Amino acid sequence: MPYIELDKNLPGITGLLQYRLDTALPIRQLTQILLRGNSTLSEGERELIASVVSYGNECAFCTAAHTAAADLLLGEKETAHKVKFDAAHAPVSEKMKALLDIARAVQVSGKNVTEEMIEKAKRENAKDLEIHDTVLIAALFSLYNRYVDGLASVTPDDPSFYERLARILKNNGYMPSPGRYDSLKK
Amino acid sequence: MPYIELDKNLPGITGLLQYRLDTALPIRQLTQILLRGNSTLSEGERELIASVVSYGNECAFCTAAHTAAADLLLGEKETAHKVKFDAAHAPVSEKMKALLDIARAVQVSGKNVTEEMIEKAKRENAKDLEIHDTVLIAALFSLYNRYVDGLASVTPDDPSFYERLARILKNNGYMPSPGRYDSLKK
Repeated sequence: MPYIELDKNLPGITGLLQYRLDTALPIRQLTQILLRGNSTLSEGERELIASVVSYGNECAFCTAAHTAAADLLLGEKETAHKVKFDAAHAPVSEKMKALLDIARAVQVSGKNVTEEMIEKAKRENAKDLEIHDTVLIAALFSLYNRYVDGLASVTPDDPSFYERLARILKNNGYMPSPGRYDSLKK
Repeated sequence: MPYIELDKNLPGITGLLQYRLDTALPIRQLTQILLRGNSTLSEGERELIASVVSYGNECAFCTAAHTAAADLLLGEKETAHKVKFDAAHAPVSEKMKALLDIARAVQVSGKNVTEEMIEKAKRENAKDLEIHDTVLIAALFSLYNRYVDGLASVTPDDPSFYERLARILKNNGYMPSPGRYDSLKK
């Protein structure tokens, strides 16, 4: 049971974003820019970063949600599975492997990012902005994971919940919209 | 040296917020609402939360900046020192002690917040919103700390730098403004 009174129909992050709308708006805006804005990283690749960070933080809700979003955006489930459980063999570019290594370091501590990690990413042609965005996405999901678990929000067991949420994240992005969560309430 | 090319006159978070203005804006807005918006926690108390989380994450820049901001807002240096190094004897309310314990737990992992911590805070009359905001401030500084250290931004040694930054944070808050950092560039 959540530590504060939240809408029982809105599990995980959804009820928290509804609980305080004024703080939710900039969180949503930041996420929309980073995960859906113009970028040389695809939306699927950016969801992979969210997914590996959430997995590292053991945030079951966020891991399931962003794995489902990555699966839907990539059109297959192998990549999002492998970046978490068999990273060396994940079917992503060498640049993306280097960026995911940076994201995993940031998840533990900003100080864990080494010059070697950055050099490897730059050797694979990662631009400054891609490195910046990787670090900031990893930092943002370190916020989300703590927000979701620090208030003990509810984590649904039903995989179809996360598939419905992933459709919202793919089709509508992260900004608020009327009836946004109607498909979750069943 | 930072891992990406940043303005050499803007150390720590300041150069990062200048590097990508579109992501900086919602980060600034979220911080302004949480640390300077209406709240039953004082601005000084909220800077203490930022300070203990940054200290826990060993982010030297953020710890120095938000300790200096707390010192300036509280009008003394004892409290911000003790919440970091001798928390049991810090001259803060029992409610604030309970909230700082929650913030320290969130810094490590959202999962580290226990029912006992929440019950203790509620016994000391912490309201749901105060608990929510404590968790979200701790989560936000877990983002900041990773952003600052994950890109190896510069940490000035000169204590007067942080005093000048603290004056900006006290007098102007967290939103962008023309000439905001002029007093830092000397």
